[in-house]
Amino acid sequence: MKIAVLGAGLIGTAIAIDLSQEEKFQVISVDINEQNLHKLQKYSQIKKLKEDISDFDTLKNIVDDCDYVINALPSNMGYKILKNLILCKKNVVDITFFEEDPFTLSELAEQNNVTAVVDCGIAPGMSNILSGFIEKELDETKELYIYVGGIPSKKNPPWDYKAVFAPKDVINEYMRPARFVINGELVIKEALSEPEPISFEGHGTFEAFNTDGLRTLINTLSIKDMREKTIRYPGHIDRIKVLKECGLFDENQIEINGIKATPLEMTSEILFPQWKMNEDDRDKTLFRIVAKGTKDKKEVKYMYNLVDEYDEETNIHSMARTTGYTATAVARLLSEGLFNKKGIVAPEFIGREKECVEFILAAMKKKGIDFQLTIDE
Amino acid sequence: MKIAVLGAGLIGTAIAIDLSQEEKFQVISVDINEQNLHKLQKYSQIKKLKEDISDFDTLKNIVDDCDYVINALPSNMGYKILKNLILCKKNVVDITFFEEDPFTLSELAEQNNVTAVVDCGIAPGMSNILSGFIEKELDETKELYIYVGGIPSKKNPPWDYKAVFAPKDVINEYMRPARFVINGELVIKEALSEPEPISFEGHGTFEAFNTDGLRTLINTLSIKDMREKTIRYPGHIDRIKVLKECGLFDENQIEINGIKATPLEMTSEILFPQWKMNEDDRDKTLFRIVAKGTKDKKEVKYMYNLVDEYDEETNIHSMARTTGYTATAVARLLSEGLFNKKGIVAPEFIGREKECVEFILAAMKKKGIDFQLTIDE
Repeated sequence: MKIAVLGAGLIGTAIAIDLSQEEKFQVISVDINEQNLHKLQKYSQIKKLKEDISDFDTLKNIVDDCDYVINALPSNMGYKILKNLILCKKNVVDITFFEEDPFTLSELAEQNNVTAVVDCGIAPGMSNILSGFIEKELDETKELYIYVGGIPSKKNPPWDYKAVFAPKDVINEYMRPARFVINGELVIKEALSEPEPISFEGHGTFEAFNTDGLRTLINTLSIKDMREKTIRYPGHIDRIKVLKECGLFDENQIEINGIKATPLEMTSEILFPQWKMNEDDRDKTLFRIVAKGTKDKKEVKYMYNLVDEYDEETNIHSMARTTGYTATAVARLLSEGLFNKKGIVAPEFIGREKECVEFILAAMKKKGIDFQLTIDE
Repeated sequence: MKIAVLGAGLIGTAIAIDLSQEEKFQVISVDINEQNLHKLQKYSQIKKLKEDISDFDTLKNIVDDCDYVINALPSNMGYKILKNLILCKKNVVDITFFEEDPFTLSELAEQNNVTAVVDCGIAPGMSNILSGFIEKELDETKELYIYVGGIPSKKNPPWDYKAVFAPKDVINEYMRPARFVINGELVIKEALSEPEPISFEGHGTFEAFNTDGLRTLINTLSIKDMREKTIRYPGHIDRIKVLKECGLFDENQIEINGIKATPLEMTSEILFPQWKMNEDDRDKTLFRIVAKGTKDKKEVKYMYNLVDEYDEETNIHSMARTTGYTATAVARLLSEGLFNKKGIVAPEFIGREKECVEFILAAMKKKGIDFQLTIDE
């Protein structure tokens, strides 16, 4: 079975390596940057291609004889490449987290008889799968709170933060208003608002604040109260708020030394080197879902918890593990023929199938990623 | 008696107007910028000159028949112009607050038989005069704490600050390590460190933090414990600290959109418009000196307090009032022949002469600037 992995960044390489260790998969890793592919050098079973797949014919050529494609490109290329992959009639697992509405491609995907699972990382991704599962399990789900954060294993002042994905997307997340569902209505909250402490046993207390992470869940689940928050070390967000409130993330052009630039461009130039996740930096992923509702006429509370750490053996970052191995679990699910729905698939659709969820959780557990479910009545 | 006022900024204009209201003074206001001079249009008794006095001969020509010169130019021009004025054999009151050591000009000033009072604003300035006075009054002064701040009358989030002098000099003040005297030793403290609450009756509680404001006092007074702090609205300095700690005030060059600039240049471009004191902005000046020591074998505590507000009648800012009217009071003192020491004069030297201090306090009081002295035993 042939799988192409588009993009050989932090996460794309983790995906390629994981799949290549199963004999049934022949893996092709594609990137425009030779240096990225170089990191896969010692994995001779992975075919490496240095190509610019923003060109449709190049892309078509590469994926033509593939059974599945994993799209791990930067978010700004995501939608266009997904569309092209659908036109190539390829089944896709997409972790580009593009901003466009994926359901605008539903008809195209159905016409081409394609399964395209979007937003298929840790959150969005596993958070959607487990949320879909909970909604199906309970008779009525009244509240759904999702918390997630990728942070450095050790605090690094002054930011106590390293970017586990593109820093530009981190700032986007800090700026974009958060869309929540409250009392059944869509409510817009300011990003970074309503900070609250959140503890993980053995790891300490962190801070969670509003971000725009519900995405497809807003429309696919019928839960009256849904919110999403991002987790960081306490204090990080206060610093970000200072920069935000003082206009340092603004996108209006100003002039400096005769050239025009935006405050965001300038601030990024200063911040990004400080946020850069270096080879020897360790990270961890904190994840929690809290859902309340009723089952068999009893009030129940479902809670999923996960703390995942950097893999010292393989030197794979926790964010690459949790995001990448969700994508590979779903790719395996599709390749086993266990999920056959065509069209654009939000991960919560998979979550509605109990066997699929069990398959994915088992695949993740094999990788040491063990979501702990607690049910309180 | 002829007086030249160099610089027609916020403070230079207040000085020119004040002196021009006394018949004995003929005032010349000099600025390179016509717009600045335009603000003095309705004062026909003031002679306005648009000239570039960075040229020695131009300067000499202008001040040649003047009895006194008040130097109210930007700090980066201060030292050079003062030196040139001394070479022109002119008595000077200087409020440029230049960074260079003024005493390097002592010999030159003495040789030219010139009195040059430097650092002659509110603080440094009045703070030095009153500190010198206290040191002379007490048998032994053990502690001297100086607090001063120029702030907007109303809080203006997010900064709660408007710059009452050049914003570049404000950031300098926030970056330059503070030189204190502790147990008789010179001690360097980080700027912005050791914040403490400070209250002014009827005005609320503010925040004071370490800055490098002792200047000449470090060497001229023999007090074992001397510190200086700057006052702002609570919270302001926490924001500044974020920017400082994150390298946004750094002066190393980085590249953006193909040109090179420093983080400080970029940040300034964003901050300064937000800090700009506009025509309709009101300000106030907070000032306190606390000194402890012994007099007649008793422990005594001297405290000077001042809160000065924007003048609604004349539209003169409080910082221009308190700085400018210290300079004019000292100019009047010199013109009355009450202080005749030649050479570079730090204001604390004037403070050692009780009659001079009384003259200056009376002149300030006439302008509604009333320093309140409390003595506790």
